[in-house]
Amino acid sequence: MRLDVVFTPQGLLPADVAGRTVFVIDILRATTAMCAALAHGAKAVIPVASSEEAVRLAQTIGSTDVLLAGEQNCVRIPGFQLGNSPLEMTEEAVRGRTIIMTTTNGTKAMLATQGAGAVYAAAAANLTLAGTAARDALEQQRDILIVCAARDGAFALDDAYAAGRLAVAALGGRKPRRGLNDAALAALDLVRRYGDGWFRPLAYSRGGRELIRLGFRADVEDASRVDAYPILPRLHDRRVTAVPAP
Amino acid sequence: MRLDVVFTPQGLLPADVAGRTVFVIDILRATTAMCAALAHGAKAVIPVASSEEAVRLAQTIGSTDVLLAGEQNCVRIPGFQLGNSPLEMTEEAVRGRTIIMTTTNGTKAMLATQGAGAVYAAAAANLTLAGTAARDALEQQRDILIVCAARDGAFALDDAYAAGRLAVAALGGRKPRRGLNDAALAALDLVRRYGDGWFRPLAYSRGGRELIRLGFRADVEDASRVDAYPILPRLHDRRVTAVPAP
Repeated sequence: MRLDVVFTPQGLLPADVAGRTVFVIDILRATTAMCAALAHGAKAVIPVASSEEAVRLAQTIGSTDVLLAGEQNCVRIPGFQLGNSPLEMTEEAVRGRTIIMTTTNGTKAMLATQGAGAVYAAAAANLTLAGTAARDALEQQRDILIVCAARDGAFALDDAYAAGRLAVAALGGRKPRRGLNDAALAALDLVRRYGDGWFRPLAYSRGGRELIRLGFRADVEDASRVDAYPILPRLHDRRVTAVPAP
Repeated sequence: MRLDVVFTPQGLLPADVAGRTVFVIDILRATTAMCAALAHGAKAVIPVASSEEAVRLAQTIGSTDVLLAGEQNCVRIPGFQLGNSPLEMTEEAVRGRTIIMTTTNGTKAMLATQGAGAVYAAAAANLTLAGTAARDALEQQRDILIVCAARDGAFALDDAYAAGRLAVAALGGRKPRRGLNDAALAALDLVRRYGDGWFRPLAYSRGGRELIRLGFRADVEDASRVDAYPILPRLHDRRVTAVPAP
């Protein structure tokens, strides 16, 4: 049994990922927004690395069902229908639509998981579902890797705390002395430090402070709500779709 | 005032480093061994990235004063006079000698600091001196960057805890609400978690567990001794030498 955390996707090797059950976390805001979009009836979210790629892909798909979503420096990209705020992913806006989402860090993290056994998106918004999937994987002797999207390769407190919470849920009260890497141990320490309330570590992180400064405090609050969007997004063949409830 | 920590040198940009006062930490065992060597009278330590480079550089220098030190998978490289253990850096072995030291992670971290205002090596072994240098830098309005050497690009608990201890010393009781990046906040949290005793977080880290398993428990104990080798090693022009006491 292994439960490893990486604080940034940089430097992930195929061998670190191969065959594992991977959870990608970009809680402020990409993976939270994905949960919101799918919970409100979006058909799929396609994460891409740049706005150019988003526009090109939308043209290739050529359907009026496609929405472009994305931000640069926290603000909606001009010409895009949506930003990256989970609060914009209303049922009215997204039901039946395919969303092409530009998210530099989240996308890099997802692309770094090629070769994994399965790749899910996680956040507070789907903690119980993601935690159950992680616990199930461990019980089936599958190794878990939690990938924090982080910020431009730098450790991000918000994602690291979320990784710790997911690890706690995955372990379900077990306290293994082996099988956790140093980052997993440190993520669990962050949970001990910040306790159960999500808002504090999120608002304390650089990403959270920046969002609040730019007027997106409601997004940080929304991203702090546990099980707000109870959906398990799964990345498969470059598309993120909701795993059907069992 | 900025006090930032990076948990791995991977992804460090010249702009992150430019003009800063940088502290490199590879507590198990490169920066501890550097302190030990210089405290026991070595003239200089030259960190290099590979055993091949070490041998080549020794031939170039061509002096009988040169010693080769280094490990692969924790064990002394065949043909080298020394491993990377601080306990090998006795006065008898190193006085007056220049040590060419192979240390994959520590060297990478040091090479990533090009363009810094000053680069020091830090460990528990020189905590007071490194902490004083860091506090002085902050008081002189110079920004600080603490670079954890880590393990092959992956977060290392031992270096992260040491970074937290150095940050505590640098701040000298101040509790700035700004000016610390997320990794610095998390490193301070680790100090809260593990308290003052160095051995526990070191022995708990993957690197520490591996050393203990391979019979190097005494090295982990030695690396846990605060101010064991009261020397401030400074990297300048690829050579690490002791900053003279004021």
